[in-house]
Amino acid sequence: MYNSLWLNYKKLSVSDDFEKNIADCLCNVCFVSFDENNPVFLNAKKEIETAFSVILDRKINFCSNENEMKNGLFINFTPEKDLGKEGYHVFSTDKGYSIEAGGYNGLLYGIFRFIELLRLGKLTGNVDEKVIPDNPLRMLNHWDNMPGDIERGYSGNSFFFEDNKVLVNDRTVMYARAVSSVGINAVVINNVNVKGEASYLISEKHYEDLRNLSEIFNGYGISLFVSINYALPMEYGIETADPLDERVISWWKERCSEIYENVPSLGGFLVKADSEGRPGPFTYGRNQADGANMLAKAIAPFGGIIIWRCFVYNCRQDWRDTKTDRARAGYDYFHALDGQFEDNVVLQIKNGPMDFQVREPVSPLFGGMEHTNQILEVQIAQEYTGQQRHVCYLIPWFKEVLSFNTHMNEASVADIVSGRAMGNRYAGMAAVCNTGNDFNWTGHDLAGANLYGFGKLSFNTSLSSEEIAYDWARLYMASAMGEESFKKINGDRITDVTVEILMKSWPAYEKYNAPLGIGWMVVPNNHYGPDVDGYEYSVWGTYHKADCRAIGIDRTEKGTGFTTQYRKENAELYSSADTCPEELLLFFHRMPYNYILRSGKTIIQHIYDTHFEGAEDVEYMSGLWNTLKGLVNEDVFERVTARFEHQLMHSKEWRDVINSYFYRKTLIEDEKGRELY
Amino acid sequence: MYNSLWLNYKKLSVSDDFEKNIADCLCNVCFVSFDENNPVFLNAKKEIETAFSVILDRKINFCSNENEMKNGLFINFTPEKDLGKEGYHVFSTDKGYSIEAGGYNGLLYGIFRFIELLRLGKLTGNVDEKVIPDNPLRMLNHWDNMPGDIERGYSGNSFFFEDNKVLVNDRTVMYARAVSSVGINAVVINNVNVKGEASYLISEKHYEDLRNLSEIFNGYGISLFVSINYALPMEYGIETADPLDERVISWWKERCSEIYENVPSLGGFLVKADSEGRPGPFTYGRNQADGANMLAKAIAPFGGIIIWRCFVYNCRQDWRDTKTDRARAGYDYFHALDGQFEDNVVLQIKNGPMDFQVREPVSPLFGGMEHTNQILEVQIAQEYTGQQRHVCYLIPWFKEVLSFNTHMNEASVADIVSGRAMGNRYAGMAAVCNTGNDFNWTGHDLAGANLYGFGKLSFNTSLSSEEIAYDWARLYMASAMGEESFKKINGDRITDVTVEILMKSWPAYEKYNAPLGIGWMVVPNNHYGPDVDGYEYSVWGTYHKADCRAIGIDRTEKGTGFTTQYRKENAELYSSADTCPEELLLFFHRMPYNYILRSGKTIIQHIYDTHFEGAEDVEYMSGLWNTLKGLVNEDVFERVTARFEHQLMHSKEWRDVINSYFYRKTLIEDEKGRELY
Repeated sequence: MYNSLWLNYKKLSVSDDFEKNIADCLCNVCFVSFDENNPVFLNAKKEIETAFSVILDRKINFCSNENEMKNGLFINFTPEKDLGKEGYHVFSTDKGYSIEAGGYNGLLYGIFRFIELLRLGKLTGNVDEKVIPDNPLRMLNHWDNMPGDIERGYSGNSFFFEDNKVLVNDRTVMYARAVSSVGINAVVINNVNVKGEASYLISEKHYEDLRNLSEIFNGYGISLFVSINYALPMEYGIETADPLDERVISWWKERCSEIYENVPSLGGFLVKADSEGRPGPFTYGRNQADGANMLAKAIAPFGGIIIWRCFVYNCRQDWRDTKTDRARAGYDYFHALDGQFEDNVVLQIKNGPMDFQVREPVSPLFGGMEHTNQILEVQIAQEYTGQQRHVCYLIPWFKEVLSFNTHMNEASVADIVSGRAMGNRYAGMAAVCNTGNDFNWTGHDLAGANLYGFGKLSFNTSLSSEEIAYDWARLYMASAMGEESFKKINGDRITDVTVEILMKSWPAYEKYNAPLGIGWMVVPNNHYGPDVDGYEYSVWGTYHKADCRAIGIDRTEKGTGFTTQYRKENAELYSSADTCPEELLLFFHRMPYNYILRSGKTIIQHIYDTHFEGAEDVEYMSGLWNTLKGLVNEDVFERVTARFEHQLMHSKEWRDVINSYFYRKTLIEDEKGRELY
Repeated sequence: MYNSLWLNYKKLSVSDDFEKNIADCLCNVCFVSFDENNPVFLNAKKEIETAFSVILDRKINFCSNENEMKNGLFINFTPEKDLGKEGYHVFSTDKGYSIEAGGYNGLLYGIFRFIELLRLGKLTGNVDEKVIPDNPLRMLNHWDNMPGDIERGYSGNSFFFEDNKVLVNDRTVMYARAVSSVGINAVVINNVNVKGEASYLISEKHYEDLRNLSEIFNGYGISLFVSINYALPMEYGIETADPLDERVISWWKERCSEIYENVPSLGGFLVKADSEGRPGPFTYGRNQADGANMLAKAIAPFGGIIIWRCFVYNCRQDWRDTKTDRARAGYDYFHALDGQFEDNVVLQIKNGPMDFQVREPVSPLFGGMEHTNQILEVQIAQEYTGQQRHVCYLIPWFKEVLSFNTHMNEASVADIVSGRAMGNRYAGMAAVCNTGNDFNWTGHDLAGANLYGFGKLSFNTSLSSEEIAYDWARLYMASAMGEESFKKINGDRITDVTVEILMKSWPAYEKYNAPLGIGWMVVPNNHYGPDVDGYEYSVWGTYHKADCRAIGIDRTEKGTGFTTQYRKENAELYSSADTCPEELLLFFHRMPYNYILRSGKTIIQHIYDTHFEGAEDVEYMSGLWNTLKGLVNEDVFERVTARFEHQLMHSKEWRDVINSYFYRKTLIEDEKGRELY
């Protein structure tokens, strides 16, 4: 059992003549110049029919000759225009509405967007929306394991795997429709930590299922990718996985040939090598480019690409060692290799350099590499941001990362991962996905906004977080209630409340989490709940070094030198506590608790204040949510309410544990005399 | 595959006439007045034969008429003497040696001891050892689960269960021989946390296996006990487990009748109720006596007893709450019930009141209850004492507990649990067992000394830790090498080194663990390795409350009042920091780091010093051990050496984490200028 996410169509309530006219007009749909046998075309047409027949509650007339129709929706195949294969142009004309697309993906995206505009009441007035996706690759990475569990999954089990088999069923289709509707064009179905049966996902046993799955995906413009075990040849009797060894090279060539014979549309491989116990080229004294290029050459003849993760670090560090800095590792391993990767290799760079904390600086690899394909990896699975029990809308965070000026020719991260900065073809964004087989896909209904939002943002990085939140809230929350309406009062209320909660949620979570960018004050392993010293004496390289006078890591030139990995302007910005953005102060600097922040507060008082505020923000959000009782769908209300009850308790636990930790360490009283333990 | 523990007999090397005379003499064994069909007798005779035929390397002549034999070993059944059923008297006579026993268990114990004396070279001179066991019940509690895993097991899987079935095989016999040889007379085979199939251990499905198992046990004087699920009637359709409900009462009566029909020699039940999520009488507004007595009445007609654990506490405490004190819970729940329990109920009181920490005060229930059967529960499974990867010989700790003067008529704990203080019949000692299906039974070979030692100590509480260590070292370590000898140089060397390591081990472990009795600075859940704040903000009631000036919990009258649960003399002793034993100072008092201990050191310097010393002690022990290379059995050497290597690293980790934690909290330097992080 599963819901339709934001594609849960309802009949439109038509309340005036103007609306009625639109509805009358849209009963006629004309597709011009398309290949009517193209599977994407067929799905696109089906989407129009499915949506309109429910929303308009009428029979839809289709034609393929624009002269047959006086007015209606005209959809044109216009490959000669500047839309590329994935862009679309929606606009109003005197005959109704028009969608132009230069390719079948563009057609699908235009149609999905048109349906949204209809549901959102945005077809009134002069419509003119032309979008060519910013990022060539818009990927989801599922960390699903073949037995059916999901690493860092917070919404049930996998819907891609069960009992070491690939699942292909009606839920697969619903998934493809939903993610395609927000512009996703690439999906990795299995965990980057490839273990057990997953090593053999690309083998005879699973080809047929993969082919079936890829065909469903292809029908929605999605390329199927798989994560592979770098050392796979060794499972087949080759003694080594040395990327320069001829046996290894030819084994992969043959294997790629076999794979593409069976799954011709495979997009390629995602590889996590030499990280957290995964095998990789380092084992053989080779570098990361050697490993990636060997695979890239093997897969190139079939049009495949290699996505190579940069999350490479020594995960057995001694906590007593103050020289080693995990934040440095990605740059240290990859920077010198700039320009050495094959054209069909894309480096996938995790945000941030440590690991998906609620706040980290942008990786210095962005801007540090001028001749390398790059993907920005974010995590909508809320591993460190409340595990889909806390609400935490992450799009504002991703927006900040995208807008970061790397000072490589003044390019932003968005410029780099779009391919604009370097004119490269393979680039984009990837999100570690937050879905599972829960009824609502994401555990927390409000976490659906991150799935929707990631797709939308990766398609169009200039969208604002509020716009995305608004659309999702309207399409999912308001629509879940009953009839759709352009301006139904309850719909507006639900949408406004939902947007307010979403926009408040990440700042609130950050407030009651680890202070000022230092991160990692979480329970080890499961990463849920506060444990200030949880990782402090561990091997993981994630320390805050708080003593009774100061806290933070000096990552300047005098410390670990991490700041020197940035371009000069950013290196300078971060190097001085005076100029360092304060939300990252303790990430870059070791500071005494009595240091005065720009707010005029000491660090210790800032810690107390933000933690009290964060918990108060949750009370506020929870109160807001409760005003929707009786307005939103009852099941949604119950699920979200139960999660808010937990978040209320748990944000207080965060508040009290963090505050008490620092109070005990300093015995500095809260200026406002609030209770510390 | 398994070894024979301390029953690994080797040929005696006879090096002089005196020894040769003993050997010649012991070839003749005469059993007088025994029932030769008694299964215990048959085993006792078999043990003599097995042992002597190897050790003496001769055929053994048996007779049953003492006049037939000129000299030899004479074993007499003497029920009229003061030996009780379990005592024995071993002495030398002009015809050789004599063993007297008043019952079959006594016979077995006398014979096992005689074999030991022979192997230890202690049959020289005038032998006269008369021992009547101090404790009526000498129990092992196995926390084995029916799927085969062991809760807090550190030496493999269960040898009692596999795949939800009871195992009865040759290892069962070896186990019975070994534990019987040190005087164990009662064994609980399954985990006190009764879950899954274990609820149905006392049902038709498993009766036959239980009966077979109990018959093997009986042949070695051991009663079989099982842990039960208090709420079992509810699994059989009774709506309640209210101990005063007639349906519950009659259900248990009928069930007991059925059980004893099938397993006639069952000793009784062990029950963990109302604790850590286990069901119990509290659910029905009844007290612990109501629950225990209901079961006791049901089992009484069959001679069974109920062992009722006192480890009852609220395990969902708020860490902010400074009033609730887990240490108080046992006394709070049980003290008022003194005298209300049926005669066949025995309360099993965990040492200490918190939970098996490396150092805790003795439970105030000892001495607090004057009319209640009591068992002292200790844990030789090294849950908090190094998990059988660190060496930690616990007998000295148990000796301290036993010798504690409760000031209830000046009775010691040993007086109470022996039954001497109150003249009661059901009393004794129980140990949570440290065995598993590892080849050497206990993971760490040196942990075997705790299994051996617990049995010996519970049999004869006046034995010294050193005597026990010496005997075990000689029997296991020295014997593992080859021939036994009364005075083989290598044997002496091996024994001396082993005893020195054992005697140093608990103090060393305590030094590098949590300081001055405060406990609980361990990684949550698995309880292995240092994590100073690991339980500090948890629900478990186990806090140290360290801030930058002070540490410890005030448990005096002004604090949680725990000290008031002791008899006046002890309450006074613990109430003042001046008189409180310093090893428990922080358990009872909150003290500033600059408080001067009797040693003249501040607390903070004491913390630094003990932690450096503890790690140094491990280096010393490890060095000592290495001198045995080539002397002890190679497999034993390799296993123990690997564990010492780990302990060396891990004791330094303990040292550095604890010291750094307090250094960071206080920034007080080590007087000796050693490195802190």
